[in-house]
Order: sequence, then structure tokens, then C-alpha cells
Amino acid sequence: MSGSGGGRAGEFDLIGRYFRPLAANPAALGLADDAALLRPAAGEEWVVTNDMLVESIHFLEDPPGSVAAKALRVNLSDLAAKGATPMAYLLGLGLSERCDEAWVAGFAAGLAADQARFGIQLIGGDTVRTVERITISVTAMGRVAAGAMVHRSGARPGDVVFVSGTIGDAALGVRIRLGRPAPEGLAIGHLLDRYLHPQPRVALAPVVARHASASMDVSDGLVGDLGHICAASGVSAEIDAGAVPLSEEARAFLPRDPTALATILGGGDDYEILATVPPDRAAAYAADAAAAGVPVTAVGRILAGAGTPVVLDADRRPLALVSPSWVHF
Amino acid sequence: MSGSGGGRAGEFDLIGRYFRPLAANPAALGLADDAALLRPAAGEEWVVTNDMLVESIHFLEDPPGSVAAKALRVNLSDLAAKGATPMAYLLGLGLSERCDEAWVAGFAAGLAADQARFGIQLIGGDTVRTVERITISVTAMGRVAAGAMVHRSGARPGDVVFVSGTIGDAALGVRIRLGRPAPEGLAIGHLLDRYLHPQPRVALAPVVARHASASMDVSDGLVGDLGHICAASGVSAEIDAGAVPLSEEARAFLPRDPTALATILGGGDDYEILATVPPDRAAAYAADAAAAGVPVTAVGRILAGAGTPVVLDADRRPLALVSPSWVHF
Repeated sequence: MSGSGGGRAGEFDLIGRYFRPLAANPAALGLADDAALLRPAAGEEWVVTNDMLVESIHFLEDPPGSVAAKALRVNLSDLAAKGATPMAYLLGLGLSERCDEAWVAGFAAGLAADQARFGIQLIGGDTVRTVERITISVTAMGRVAAGAMVHRSGARPGDVVFVSGTIGDAALGVRIRLGRPAPEGLAIGHLLDRYLHPQPRVALAPVVARHASASMDVSDGLVGDLGHICAASGVSAEIDAGAVPLSEEARAFLPRDPTALATILGGGDDYEILATVPPDRAAAYAADAAAAGVPVTAVGRILAGAGTPVVLDADRRPLALVSPSWVHF
Repeated sequence: MSGSGGGRAGEFDLIGRYFRPLAANPAALGLADDAALLRPAAGEEWVVTNDMLVESIHFLEDPPGSVAAKALRVNLSDLAAKGATPMAYLLGLGLSERCDEAWVAGFAAGLAADQARFGIQLIGGDTVRTVERITISVTAMGRVAAGAMVHRSGARPGDVVFVSGTIGDAALGVRIRLGRPAPEGLAIGHLLDRYLHPQPRVALAPVVARHASASMDVSDGLVGDLGHICAASGVSAEIDAGAVPLSEEARAFLPRDPTALATILGGGDDYEILATVPPDRAAAYAADAAAAGVPVTAVGRILAGAGTPVVLDADRRPLALVSPSWVHF
């Protein structure tokens, strides 16, 4: 791990004080060399993903520990959706002018808590000064048994479409955060927290690897992301709007806000797992997910013929939804 | 590979048009999934490095192809110094407001040229909007035979200190670029080019792996980086100032600019390979390097006892150098 860009000695100190304690993995070489050294095991494959987060685009002026957790978790969510077990990550950290030592300490503490929680360790990276905006690049690596990674492209007609957890909370949370009113009297803490602290479904990864024909995490919205699976698999899909699992808080919006359903189904940042499962495995998928502590719900099915997903109402009539895909604010 | 942060559809187009052609490696899964999938071979280890570059800190308003080359090459230089053969990289690309499609096209063309030149391929990444400053994070992976990675920590008393190429050109180039005058009549193109287009010594990697006891690339300045090797190895070192290989252009500074030697020995961005080699292998190292097309020069030796490197003049008197370590402007 290296540091550069203004006040070199200071950056080296930061690495030693705050990041070296996160790098117990032998692959990290104590962050004292120029690279990490990984020893692949026989019969394993490695899933590698990279996400970049920029202040005021992917996160707001949040506590540094929350920013750290989000940067790590969006990558952990990608690994989980591919069926991979977290292994190690590299951190590119661009500090803005407002990042003092207390900010770095809070950021490192957020990483440390999540490392313990999700079983992943820092093995390398770089710290620089980005001046205006905090910019974070995480490259995360996970392991799967050879051949077990779940692709976007494996969905087949007849497969059941599952989502984990509840959908739409984070998209409603960010709307509230940006000043749009919530229904009167509604407790909004849960919605705000879903945006601030995504919960990657790491525990679901082996279940996804065992049963799913295709999978990805819901980061751009349920309808848009199912559309990505359809495009990669050459299929289409239908979603039963009434089957989509909602939190109590999200449900409270529906009778009072005509745009809420579009936000819920088309919004983003859920970081739930969207998986397609062959019908003869659907019951086992749900049971194994429950055993892993993650609730999953069947919300639709894969259809023959390439096309975009259709959302059906209780009478199986297609719903027209505004803004089907998420645009970051 | 994914794109996010304002105008999603546009970002997806950019990936399809400019980055997918760079991702022929099967590990990339056509940049159409959420992650790359790597299959380690038996008996291999992987060296992984990450560098982040920020506009106006690590590069100036340079042509986009040059920026792309620099971002890739600083990582290739790290891999070469570790004795690793380039394999694949992930690209986190933060575009500023001034990055139009022509900029992205030029950037991708720069990557394509270097991919062909250095035998490395894009396998994943992320594109976002960083608004004010272009910010680039490259995570590069290389392979070494198991146990063959060259660490910083292996230097032993008596080892010969070698550098490749010439030292100080880029540091003089950036001084000129920032407005400091060069000696009258001196052609400065070479110096500017050394700063703009680092030449990673990829061809030297197997020679380093075969012979060197410790190695790193010179990115923070010869004296400072040798100091890093000394610190990691628990040794000290001496450098013969007169032995340090200089370009004709750098040599022209010496009689006319009393600060030039400090810039040359303490400046940065050389991206040459600094290696320590046991004395009984020094001749073979030089011969094998020459056979690989990379000139190397013995510039000093490793001494017993922990300490910082000393630079000696022709009479073996220690030279006092101003600003021994590089601070990015």
C-alpha cells in the first residue's frame, strides 16, 4: 500500500496507524511492500469486482464509518450475488480537503467493524488527495468452487424470480433525505438506514451458488436489474407487483403517494439478491435461504423470448411505471 | 464492469463502445457481468497492486491517451519490480465534467495501445462522474512462479545496488513543465516525455525474479526508495553519485544548476527498477538484463546495520542533498 499526493510523510503515517492494523492477512505483506501476494488454492476460482464511490454522488456528508461500510458493502453485495465468499480487498482512498485525521480514524474503524463482520481483509491499495470530493475505489475478491460462479446469463424460461429481504426502502430513504416528504406520522429511521447502511447478503452466497441459474444484486432497481439478467440470458420476465416484499414503512407510502411504486420497483441501492431459480429447486432455495437467515420471496417468473420485464397488477395487467431505472442524484 | 453517477444510459454506452473491445480476456466475461472470473493455475502466485491517480496531482492536462498510459504503466512498473508478468487489470474511471466522448475515446485508445504493447487486458471496473478532477484507480494483477515474487525486504549486506535506464529525467521534466527554466539551448523533449510517458520495465521482470534479493520501482526518487528497501531489509546502503546513470540532457544540468543533483537523486516518477543483487549474481543480472534489452547500472552497495542510504561523491565523502524524497506538486 502506498500513499502520495501532498504531504507524503503524513500519508505514510496514516497507513501505518490506521490501515496496517486492518491488514493481518498474510497476502497483505503488512502493507509494507509494493503489492499483495495471493496464493490461489487448487479447485478454486476467484471473483473480482470493483466499485468506485464519489462524495455527493454515491454518498452524502455521512459519518466516515458509514462511508467506509458502504464502499465495502456494495462490493460484498456483488460477490454474494455471484455466489462467492469474501476473501480480500484493495482500497484506493482519495481524501478531500475536509478529511482530517479524525475522519480517517472513523473511516478505518468502519472498515475494521465490517472486516470482522463479513470475514474480509485489506491487502493493499493507495491513498491520495482528491481535494474536492472523497473518492473511494474498492477492488474486492472472493472465492468460489471451480465452475460455481453464478452469472447474469443463466436464466431460463420457467425459472422462478426471487428477491431477498425487502425492496425499495433505500430509494424511499434517499428521497426523504433529499427533502421529499414522507407520509405524515411515518417513522422514517428504517428507510434512511437502508440507504446509509446497505446490508450485503453475504450469508446467501453459498445458497445462490447451489441453486440459482442467474443472479445479481439489486443496485439499480428491481425492474432495471432484472432487465439486465433478461438481456444477458436472452429471455424476458414478469413480476407480480403484489408479491414484491415491502417493509411496513414502504407499504405505508402506497395508498398515499402515486409515485411510490415506481420508486420502489425502479429505484436503487437495495443491495438485495435478485436470483432466478429452476422451478424444481425453488422450494430448496427458499428453505436453504431461510436456514442461512435470509428471507427470500418469489416475485415472478422468467419467460421465453428476449424482452424487458413486465410488472403485473393483481389482475395480471401490465403496470406503466415512471423512471424504471435508477439515476443517482 | 458497471457505470453509475449521472446519465446512466450514457455511461453504459461508453462501456460498450470503448471498453468492451479492450476486454477480450475470457476472465472479463465481456464486461457484461458484475465481476471478473479468474482461474488460477497450479504453481502460480498472483501479485496485485493498486494505484490511484488524480488530475493536477499525478498528471496535468495531458492528452487522454497519455493519461491512460500513465495510469496503467505505474502499475505495470510495480509488477515488473516484483518480478511478475502482467496478466489483467481493473479500471475505476472517474470522469470530470470536461471529459466528453472524444476524451473517453482517446483514453481507451491509449489503453488499447498499451494492452498490445505490454500483454495485459482489461477484465472489469467501474465508471463514475468525479465532477472536478479526473480520478483513475487501476488494480493490476501479475503472475509469478510460486515463491518467486521479489520483496522489498530481502537486501543483504554486500549486495550490489542496480538501477535500470537513467535516473532523474522525469523529475527534471516536471520542473520544466511547471515553469522552471532549463539550461539555455538544451533540447527538453526527452525530459518532458519521461515525465509524460513512463516506460515500465516489463521486460526486466523475469531477470529480477531470477537474480534480485530485493526490488522496487523508483517512483518516489532513488534515494528515498532505496531507503524503503533498507528499512524493510534492516540494512543501510551507499550510492556512488558519479555512478548513477544519467541521460545527456540530465547531465547538462549538473554544471549549471546546483539543485539539479538533488532533483535527480531525490525526485520521482522514474519508473526504473531499483534492485539489490547478491555479488555473485551481479554479472549475470547485468548480462541477462542486457539480453532482455534493458540496460542496468551498478550504483552502490548494501551495508550492514539499519540506516538510511548515503550518497558519496568521487572522494567517497557523503553529499548533503536537499529534499531527499519526492513530494508531488
